[in-house]
Amino acid sequence: MRTRRLALCQVKTRADRQTTLLAAETMVRQAAEEGADLAVLPEMFFCPYAAEAFPRYAETAEGPAAAAMADWAVRFGVTVVGGSLPERDGERLYNTCFVFGPDGRRLARYRKAHLFDVDLADGTSFRESDTFSPGDEICVFDAAGCRIGLAICFDLRFPELIRAMAVRGAELILAPSQFTMRTGALHWEKILTMRALDNEVFVAGVCTARNPQSGYTCWGHSLLVSPFGTVLADCGTEEGLRIVEIDLDEVAAVRRQLPTFLHLRRDLYRVAE
Amino acid sequence: MRTRRLALCQVKTRADRQTTLLAAETMVRQAAEEGADLAVLPEMFFCPYAAEAFPRYAETAEGPAAAAMADWAVRFGVTVVGGSLPERDGERLYNTCFVFGPDGRRLARYRKAHLFDVDLADGTSFRESDTFSPGDEICVFDAAGCRIGLAICFDLRFPELIRAMAVRGAELILAPSQFTMRTGALHWEKILTMRALDNEVFVAGVCTARNPQSGYTCWGHSLLVSPFGTVLADCGTEEGLRIVEIDLDEVAAVRRQLPTFLHLRRDLYRVAE
Repeated sequence: MRTRRLALCQVKTRADRQTTLLAAETMVRQAAEEGADLAVLPEMFFCPYAAEAFPRYAETAEGPAAAAMADWAVRFGVTVVGGSLPERDGERLYNTCFVFGPDGRRLARYRKAHLFDVDLADGTSFRESDTFSPGDEICVFDAAGCRIGLAICFDLRFPELIRAMAVRGAELILAPSQFTMRTGALHWEKILTMRALDNEVFVAGVCTARNPQSGYTCWGHSLLVSPFGTVLADCGTEEGLRIVEIDLDEVAAVRRQLPTFLHLRRDLYRVAE
Repeated sequence: MRTRRLALCQVKTRADRQTTLLAAETMVRQAAEEGADLAVLPEMFFCPYAAEAFPRYAETAEGPAAAAMADWAVRFGVTVVGGSLPERDGERLYNTCFVFGPDGRRLARYRKAHLFDVDLADGTSFRESDTFSPGDEICVFDAAGCRIGLAICFDLRFPELIRAMAVRGAELILAPSQFTMRTGALHWEKILTMRALDNEVFVAGVCTARNPQSGYTCWGHSLLVSPFGTVLADCGTEEGLRIVEIDLDEVAAVRRQLPTFLHLRRDLYRVAE
């Protein structure tokens, strides 16, 4: 058994940045007190999900929000997977996830590689690429004795990204997200389930709580899915914290029982890596 | 609009080979009479799904079952996607799908590339590779004015195979199948939905009807899924025919609205082709 305790922090985005950061801090502290090894926050959790807000809320990798998260990691003794924030780097903005270990060291920086540009028949329309530049690196790292891959929301729709992380040894995919109400209802659980099952890894998608007062209402339903495609936790729509114990040895066990990841036909097709 | 009428032929496997072939013939004729362009049969529909049966039911590509299906295609004026049968080729056996056009010409031969070798914790165990050799070719072909990719059952668990077919232009994936009761309940609909959605193509999985009297009880539930991941038809568990009209122009429309297939990051990861 290689058990780890994973905390899904389904934070609700407040109108005020500091109030949201305080809510997130409180949740991360509670997660640590309840023995979590990893506390995972949602995409853009302290910034309204709106094109005009991104530049106003943007800060550098050394800015106050990243510094606050590093401080929580040290004070509470937990690895903080910091959802995402609008990161300013020179002239460019990125949708970036920072990860800090309990020693305060930055363990990862992942910039969303697939930007949310959609124009659905029902009127759902968004062009993240008007504001953000896409990241150019796949991110796999070690934290809390676990090999982790990072994806952000729309990234999850690209199976090759998740496959490449699994091929690089990731056992757990963490995906700060903000699915819309429509695509959340239609696709969210199926996407997470199949990314987990196809790669026989754990997948956690962590969303903000549903907030009908905001301009962008997120589906919520932060989920944790097992390597066999079983939903182990569903946070519903309200703000809240869920801590789930997982056994990383399940990855190898499922791969033996249902050998898909181990039986890829690399002679027939190319596999992302 | 590029509409096609697709017939899901959820045949029930009888104890007797000829009786099952007659039931299949009746269903293909009815499909043609109701205007179907393509009639799709299940995996191993006239052969018990059992290792000891495969060699006994095996025949060559020129054998009587393939000849019968070619004859149905001509007599009824419909493209017949012949599920699969145990194909003998010299010393080897394959799990093979033959496709015949209304002129009697063989349009495709696809040999299952990923054999069903599992050993689940609940006791579900099967080793298709004890009997069959795996196919070595990806199969994409044109029929009824549509570009089609073929997969057989366990093949569906390998996203790269379906991706490669979509990259080669397939708009419709046809998958004769026989999922087990357990993996059917857990995974069948999710797998088909995500293969459709990830590639923004139509996917049809056609299974035998549920038959608790047989040694191997199939989940049933032949499904057709749209390029947006919506289940358009579910045949339930009983023997029966479902004819569904699809508009192939939806493939391009969905790819514009939700540009995932068109926005793959080939600079970041390899894509099957």
